[in-house]
Amino acid sequence: MKPIDNNTNKDALRLKKFLRQAPKMFVPGVSVDTVIFSYHNNRLHVLLLHFKDLPYRTLPGGFIKKEEDLDEAALRILQERTGLANICLEQFYTSGKANRTEKNMVEEAITKRLGQLPANTWTQQRFISVCYYALVDETKVQPEPGPFTNGYSWVGVKKLPPLLYDHAYIIEKALQRLQADLDQKLAGFNPMNDTFTMNDLQKLYEAVYQKKLVRTNFQRKMLGLGVLERLEKQYNGKAHKAPYLYRFVQAT
Amino acid sequence: MKPIDNNTNKDALRLKKFLRQAPKMFVPGVSVDTVIFSYHNNRLHVLLLHFKDLPYRTLPGGFIKKEEDLDEAALRILQERTGLANICLEQFYTSGKANRTEKNMVEEAITKRLGQLPANTWTQQRFISVCYYALVDETKVQPEPGPFTNGYSWVGVKKLPPLLYDHAYIIEKALQRLQADLDQKLAGFNPMNDTFTMNDLQKLYEAVYQKKLVRTNFQRKMLGLGVLERLEKQYNGKAHKAPYLYRFVQAT
Repeated sequence: MKPIDNNTNKDALRLKKFLRQAPKMFVPGVSVDTVIFSYHNNRLHVLLLHFKDLPYRTLPGGFIKKEEDLDEAALRILQERTGLANICLEQFYTSGKANRTEKNMVEEAITKRLGQLPANTWTQQRFISVCYYALVDETKVQPEPGPFTNGYSWVGVKKLPPLLYDHAYIIEKALQRLQADLDQKLAGFNPMNDTFTMNDLQKLYEAVYQKKLVRTNFQRKMLGLGVLERLEKQYNGKAHKAPYLYRFVQAT
Repeated sequence: MKPIDNNTNKDALRLKKFLRQAPKMFVPGVSVDTVIFSYHNNRLHVLLLHFKDLPYRTLPGGFIKKEEDLDEAALRILQERTGLANICLEQFYTSGKANRTEKNMVEEAITKRLGQLPANTWTQQRFISVCYYALVDETKVQPEPGPFTNGYSWVGVKKLPPLLYDHAYIIEKALQRLQADLDQKLAGFNPMNDTFTMNDLQKLYEAVYQKKLVRTNFQRKMLGLGVLERLEKQYNGKAHKAPYLYRFVQAT
């Protein structure tokens, strides 16, 4: 039993330290949440964290240091919470309903661990959350969640478990923006293997749009975007059906 | 001289009252700015306010009440600062560079009027600004700026005067979003006369994109959007050249 007690105690101390330091370190009233979509096995997933004590899954999120730019904060928070670095994050929405953190699930969880909190504890504020998203190749990233979490999962965007606050709504808004911006952001996100067939690309689009697309129209549209470079054919034994391979044109 | 002194005194009292009440009324650290584009005489304009004492033009902006939703705050702030109501505002960006309000021009102006301010005055904070935009028909709106301003102007988007903080950058970001979303938001914004010719519509697009467009391509694209209803021809004496009139299809 001893190692468990030690860990529990460590967690409580870490949490107490965070709550004591937060008002000095961070901009009040504003948080950052990140929606990391991934594409794998023809499916669109979203990265969720399992915070200790919390019965809800959450987006990787955190707070902005007083001397830090908002965009820098988003990158640092993503790295601290998930270990992911060099991700092309796009700001897409700021969530600000007055009651979005009213049923304060975080406070409930903290109280369970630390007992009743003094008034004006950091987590009792209203937070307006600035939200960022990215689309990554799931096989190229390896999340390593930080000390407040028990792990993570990649979850299908249409099969979300119970989530903290308005995180389900934030994911819905992120998906709308991903759909609207995919043509333009595709090469920047680079969410596929380095080379791929037109059929592979169509499957990515179908996962993002959650519907089947017409092959001929899709191919014409994609070639018109000017972001694809055609390589050699991919020989697969049936030479007359061998599809071309493509890769994204490097931005210059 | 008396009326002027009276007004000056009134302004100082109003400002003192605002600075005293602000920390109790508003969410700290977050502001809202609005970019109101208008279309008039084939030109795209943006609405700028002339704050008293301030040598820079500003976007209509303000702060979020503690019990107020962010979107509600944007509408209220726009109405208080400009008199404009029933505007279709779209959130498009949150500006959060740590140094965006560092050279505190507002504080300079206030100090000039009220003398040295106590530390931690409301306006001395870092503000992260949530930004909204709209596109209106300039002939349908009549701004009536609030008590802190000396008036307003509609200014060409490529001829901006010196602006407060990063407002020029915010306007640039708003223009990018307007360009990206115009097809989709066109009917909702309804920025034209109730009926118009295809040529009128093309002029609006040319003002927004700041470039000439090809007539045949433009017409084909517009008819494909499904937001236009064709009405009778507009007779102008040269019957064989009479253009069709259109209006936006009502959303159902």
